[in-house]
Amino acid sequence: MIRHTVIFNLKHAHGSLQEKGFLRDARIALETIPGVTKFEQLRQVSPKNEYRFGFSMEFADKKAYDAYDRHPKHTAFVQDRWNREVEKFLEIDYEKL
Amino acid sequence: MIRHTVIFNLKHAHGSLQEKGFLRDARIALETIPGVTKFEQLRQVSPKNEYRFGFSMEFADKKAYDAYDRHPKHTAFVQDRWNREVEKFLEIDYEKL
Repeated sequence: MIRHTVIFNLKHAHGSLQEKGFLRDARIALETIPGVTKFEQLRQVSPKNEYRFGFSMEFADKKAYDAYDRHPKHTAFVQDRWNREVEKFLEIDYEKL
Repeated sequence: MIRHTVIFNLKHAHGSLQEKGFLRDARIALETIPGVTKFEQLRQVSPKNEYRFGFSMEFADKKAYDAYDRHPKHTAFVQDRWNREVEKFLEIDYEKL
């Protein structure tokens, strides 16, 4: 199991229609890519870092993760939306210890 | 639901007995504190950040999280082990969006 997570901030104003649209379209684009399980959209609530949002998803193995990473729906979303609308982000991936 | 996570590096050498001991004792100290559910010890595997380990746990609500935070087993672990053996860390907490 690989759990892929990312915490991020958007360029959009908090609570804006653009923010809602990004989150909605991210779910539509990413959740249905083959291999993605337990897709979650999260609010980052710790005051000890400056990120506002998080996505989390799980893959059976590295092969499934790599297939997601190069899937056209993922690369298109990154190019057309993520790179334009995300201000900053940090990726964190886990395997069971 | 609040998911409390932390990514961190230890001062100990990778694969050392001290490393194993820290992880074992962390589980013993933290997993049994009232309110803690889904306690996980994880390996951070993304090359896009410099952290090696992660812990994740879930609480029913903020009240349960706060009770964990001030629980003597937690504060003792932080003081006696975490502050001495952890080189750097980042806390990330989530609520469902």
